[in-house]
Amino acid sequence: MDTKLTLEEVRKFIAIEFPQMADVYRVDAIAPMWAQVSMMPDERHLRPGATVSGPTIFGLVDCGMYFALMATIGPEALAVTTNASIDFMRKPLAGKALIAEVNLLKVGRVLAVGDVAVRSEGSDALIARATLTYSMPPKK
Amino acid sequence: MDTKLTLEEVRKFIAIEFPQMADVYRVDAIAPMWAQVSMMPDERHLRPGATVSGPTIFGLVDCGMYFALMATIGPEALAVTTNASIDFMRKPLAGKALIAEVNLLKVGRVLAVGDVAVRSEGSDALIARATLTYSMPPKK
Amino acid sequence: MDTKLTLEEVRKFIAIEFPQMADVYRVDAIAPMWAQVSMMPDERHLRPGATVSGPTIFGLVDCGMYFALMATIGPEALAVTTNASIDFMRKPLAGKALIAEVNLLKVGRVLAVGDVAVRSEGSDALIARATLTYSMPPKK
Amino acid sequence: MDTKLTLEEVRKFIAIEFPQMADVYRVDAIAPMWAQVSMMPDERHLRPGATVSGPTIFGLVDCGMYFALMATIGPEALAVTTNASIDFMRKPLAGKALIAEVNLLKVGRVLAVGDVAVRSEGSDALIARATLTYSMPPKK
Repeated sequence: MDTKLTLEEVRKFIAIEFPQMADVYRVDAIAPMWAQVSMMPDERHLRPGATVSGPTIFGLVDCGMYFALMATIGPEALAVTTNASIDFMRKPLAGKALIAEVNLLKVGRVLAVGDVAVRSEGSDALIARATLTYSMPPKK
Repeated sequence: MDTKLTLEEVRKFIAIEFPQMADVYRVDAIAPMWAQVSMMPDERHLRPGATVSGPTIFGLVDCGMYFALMATIGPEALAVTTNASIDFMRKPLAGKALIAEVNLLKVGRVLAVGDVAVRSEGSDALIARATLTYSMPPKK
Repeated sequence: MDTKLTLEEVRKFIAIEFPQMADVYRVDAIAPMWAQVSMMPDERHLRPGATVSGPTIFGLVDCGMYFALMATIGPEALAVTTNASIDFMRKPLAGKALIAEVNLLKVGRVLAVGDVAVRSEGSDALIARATLTYSMPPKK
Repeated sequence: MDTKLTLEEVRKFIAIEFPQMADVYRVDAIAPMWAQVSMMPDERHLRPGATVSGPTIFGLVDCGMYFALMATIGPEALAVTTNASIDFMRKPLAGKALIAEVNLLKVGRVLAVGDVAVRSEGSDALIARATLTYSMPPKK
């Protein structure tokens, strides 16, 4: 199984279609049913106590799932998130990038399910863990 | 049961502690165990197909939960999100504010659980529905 | 909007198709997009500390969702659970029936989403709160 | 890090404290932060279409989490489920045991979080995937 898009094609697609995302999120690597994305949190993403806000982590997780799916089924598809469940477990390390690793567990006719693990760069400890379900676009 | 903070006090607290949030989210009303917050989506919050991004809706939901909890237990508390589950059900109406209504279901010694319903202004249809769990700060 | 099945028809259907369920769960009332089901926990459903087991409560929630959906879309349909998220908040009252109230939030072409609240008979306090997603059977 | 209980001790504990569980669920192996449990579905656990019921799978998942936690923190603890999120992805293989593999992601002072993957014996395909949160008993 090949990816439908190369890493370069995914990055180009994001830069054109999601310019605001492209400023924040970086696609590090893709493979069939898999992707790794990362971001460097800045002032905008912090909360009191110097922790990264939940919505920031959710944004990283959701875009990682989207990019993994796009690489797997192709860019024309308008899949949308229908369900997300996320557990926040530890504070990120200060001054380190956040890295999200996405594994697609199922890409079915109507639903795709993915598992996302978020860690700080250089650390094995899980910061957050999410499961997302996307509704697949109807076949033309 | 009274709120620990008035609506004015909550707004002042947010303007000082979360200035970036205060630009986007508005606290409409609070009551013990309840809050309503809203936002007007702009360019930054849209996705292809003119839909509002999942992380934007998650951000509204999370801040609504935080503000409801703050109004109920007081501002000094540093409660943090430990779990969130969200179902996205319908596209928001274009050009309308998003309104999130928060009901706290439980405020216990170690955990608080809240239910959040998101609708477009002037519509009864549910756009998203979330349940959030916050870990309560240790009692001093 | 009418229910596709009357309360009597739903009960007859369950007795024939799900005899083991019919021994445990009782459908109290149905309406379009709504159902109430109940059960009386016995020895088999208890855990140390005299609490009702999580899987027992999940079973009540899941069958309530199934019956509400069946009453709304008709009995021929083989809808299946694709996602469930449940928060357990309080211990049930000893010796009281468990009552689950189901509200369908969406019955779409491919997915149905329902919200279920579980209480002890005669009490307003929430014991558990769940959101379930069912995948709809393909239209013939 | 050692387990607080050996496999034999866990099995003995279950046989005494949860005799009804011991009839259905088998602890295959334990290690610190990890457990594998299994069950052979019978008539009681099936639904129309010869699929295993959601509550049956939830029961396996919940007891796997409980046993992994018990092996890690010791048997005296009365941890309780506070949140569970489960995705059902594929039908189990007919006539095969269900195997649940539990990885504890966090065992904190107030919360423990675990990830559970369910497969049919002899198959790599995921049947279900769950994340559970347990509230830890107060330290004496």
